[in-house]
Amino acid sequence: MTSTSLTVPTLSEIQEAHRKIAPFIHRTPVYSCQSINRIVHADIWFKCENMQKVGAFKARGATNAVRSLAPDALAKGVATHSSGNHAQALSWAAGLAGTTAHIVMPSNSTPVKVNAVASYGGVITLCESTLESREKTLASVMEQTGAIEIHPYNNLKIIAGQATATVELLEERPELECVVAPVGGGGLLSGTALACHYLSSQVRVMAAEPALADDAFRSFTAKRFIPSVNPATIADGLRTSLGSITLPIILEYVDNIITVSETSIMEAMRLIWERMKLLVEPSAAVPLAALMEKRDEFPGEKIGIILSGGNADLENLPWNR
Amino acid sequence: MTSTSLTVPTLSEIQEAHRKIAPFIHRTPVYSCQSINRIVHADIWFKCENMQKVGAFKARGATNAVRSLAPDALAKGVATHSSGNHAQALSWAAGLAGTTAHIVMPSNSTPVKVNAVASYGGVITLCESTLESREKTLASVMEQTGAIEIHPYNNLKIIAGQATATVELLEERPELECVVAPVGGGGLLSGTALACHYLSSQVRVMAAEPALADDAFRSFTAKRFIPSVNPATIADGLRTSLGSITLPIILEYVDNIITVSETSIMEAMRLIWERMKLLVEPSAAVPLAALMEKRDEFPGEKIGIILSGGNADLENLPWNR
Repeated sequence: MTSTSLTVPTLSEIQEAHRKIAPFIHRTPVYSCQSINRIVHADIWFKCENMQKVGAFKARGATNAVRSLAPDALAKGVATHSSGNHAQALSWAAGLAGTTAHIVMPSNSTPVKVNAVASYGGVITLCESTLESREKTLASVMEQTGAIEIHPYNNLKIIAGQATATVELLEERPELECVVAPVGGGGLLSGTALACHYLSSQVRVMAAEPALADDAFRSFTAKRFIPSVNPATIADGLRTSLGSITLPIILEYVDNIITVSETSIMEAMRLIWERMKLLVEPSAAVPLAALMEKRDEFPGEKIGIILSGGNADLENLPWNR
Repeated sequence: MTSTSLTVPTLSEIQEAHRKIAPFIHRTPVYSCQSINRIVHADIWFKCENMQKVGAFKARGATNAVRSLAPDALAKGVATHSSGNHAQALSWAAGLAGTTAHIVMPSNSTPVKVNAVASYGGVITLCESTLESREKTLASVMEQTGAIEIHPYNNLKIIAGQATATVELLEERPELECVVAPVGGGGLLSGTALACHYLSSQVRVMAAEPALADDAFRSFTAKRFIPSVNPATIADGLRTSLGSITLPIILEYVDNIITVSETSIMEAMRLIWERMKLLVEPSAAVPLAALMEKRDEFPGEKIGIILSGGNADLENLPWNR
């Protein structure tokens, strides 16, 4: 595999992103938990992006993307189609930068998600839940407003922003031997892998993915894009397919991808809630689930985990279903 | 009121407790949350004892009490009757100190609580749920084993230990103008009030209590002991009555006690979960509930809150009942 044809954020672009977003984001804490270490037989350090602004690492990428726009582009606003954390993050980042985020959401989005976007000042356009309707509606919104699309993960500024979580983690724990991130569209994973590549000589990068949404695993194995089809996982942040920018980065810089069962995701999520007293969403528990399923493969290893987000649905917890 | 007849831990006893327990407990983080500040119109700093060992501030007092025993007393073990966080904390602290905690629990305790105590190595004796049966069973366990009773709150070493949470909070935030703690038996509140008295010239001490378990408020107002009778609050850590040691300390060193509705407790708990991504038990949300009910009385004030614990029952959340 050659890396020469790859377009990736450079180290200095990631560092520039970090300087740009630092005044607006939280430097989230890094925690360990003895009882979880005993269960997994490893030495785990959790980077708590569930405690990030808007409750997810997405605040990093969105802030970097918004604040990288030229003033007249910024003035026209930004746009995306998303019903998840990116929609909230983009709305929040746009508001802080004095502009507007236009968010296209399927009309079957839960009221909680619609309200969250609205509470951050996002201007919502509802559409049908098909990808075709989303894209058509987004194109029409962009045409009417002049807003610039900020894709949730297939965007170099987004990837550089997400990388900053790992920059902070490695600053605090340079001794890490492995970092595990969840993979959905691959924005966080690409950023994580690049930060590890640039900043550590020894750290391996693993991805963790629900077996019920294993398109990244299959794409990684086949070395070509395989889309996610009707993923039924509770890890709702990880149902998307990889992108044309994220797939090559992942093929080049990620060491392996582990798929995990829904039961393991639920167990890992509950462990983090009960033992660490941290509220995380199902997607954030997927890396720990991977370490639990493979618990004898990393004896005593120093492993970093990106706890990606905390926007769990408190009305509908997996163990109460 | 005179303080001369009061038996209270001195500043140096509290500092000695802190030195004694520091190697075993977490120095818990202090967090603020902009969106909660906006709701309450104050500048709140949360001392996260929900992230303490065993999930509650009780680890502090229990460790101090256990490690203050002479070696031959320690060897015979410690005992208490409790089905709550003190039972877990004492079991944990005893195990770490190489001795045994004998825990008398009512036979109608939930399996979750019995298992938690057992998992920390506590030796459990079940009894009937009346106070009479608890005390009789405890006396018999102590007679058989020679174990020393460590009362959950009416004990000077326990109070000195609980005070250390506020010592740390004031070290980090010396500018605080008010500290709010929940009140059940009064061990945490007594320690909080003494630490504030010794370490700050300006800080006021407020207690927060469920209106459905308002014995401390009534005792404080009447200036004499009034017991808690059939308290039906969801804040299960705050159902106990004050003790002969804690009541006089509270009368002397606490500025006021605010009672709050069950609805406010639930709302405050949910806010902490959703906005801070921190898992807290209902009792821990009572101070924020008090500030929410009185939201215009502290405009812009710098207020510390002790988030007392995080051992919530995930199978039975208040908003899913």
